[in-house]
Amino acid sequence: MPSIFTRIINGEIPSYKIDEDEHCYAFLDINPNAVGHTLCVPKQEVDKLFDLDQEIYMHLMQFSKRIAVALEQAVPCKRVGMAVVGLEVPHAHVHLIPIHQMTDMSFQTKVNMQEEDFISLAKKIRSKI
Amino acid sequence: MPSIFTRIINGEIPSYKIDEDEHCYAFLDINPNAVGHTLCVPKQEVDKLFDLDQEIYMHLMQFSKRIAVALEQAVPCKRVGMAVVGLEVPHAHVHLIPIHQMTDMSFQTKVNMQEEDFISLAKKIRSKI
Repeated sequence: MPSIFTRIINGEIPSYKIDEDEHCYAFLDINPNAVGHTLCVPKQEVDKLFDLDQEIYMHLMQFSKRIAVALEQAVPCKRVGMAVVGLEVPHAHVHLIPIHQMTDMSFQTKVNMQEEDFISLAKKIRSKI
Repeated sequence: MPSIFTRIINGEIPSYKIDEDEHCYAFLDINPNAVGHTLCVPKQEVDKLFDLDQEIYMHLMQFSKRIAVALEQAVPCKRVGMAVVGLEVPHAHVHLIPIHQMTDMSFQTKVNMQEEDFISLAKKIRSKI
């Protein structure tokens, strides 16, 4: 059965899309640690980041950097943090999180956002890519 | 003034070294989230990860993957997580953390290790590279 991320990439589940290329897809996390929390996912469905093909891994890192630079321009923050954990969804993904303090990286506090917030935020981030 | 990481790379401050190449240096975090917590640092002293030269950034990601694969072989864990935060030391660095649960990524709980533990652990990880 395809992962929830593959279903998002295929458009079966809606997402607040940020960007897409041949190998990767970026969209807003709907349970964000902080405003602008974005997931970058390779279209190749592999559980662990470091098990990805070398070429796809490197491409994902390049893609993530491009999104992170746009995020830092679009969302007020001290910097954009990066995390790869992967204990919940068995499809490798990079978290990009505009952070103000360490706890924004802890995945223990979440920000409440409404649909209109996600829509306008995604539009703003896309405008910086 | 050089960062604490530059001083480690230059050998002015001792470290439990894991690996080194022309552009990067890896060593054990002495205040680890979990056993095997390793830092991968570019020798180029730049504060923010995404401000690194593209070539150095990509090299750091490739270097980090190589260390992560060795870590997963050397340290019992569910997988190796990756994090870049950077609010404390203004010299970009990748955390590689062998994780068992989400809290291993939170930077809020730490593992107590003695010098002999670090020495034998570093040796074991190096043997897997």
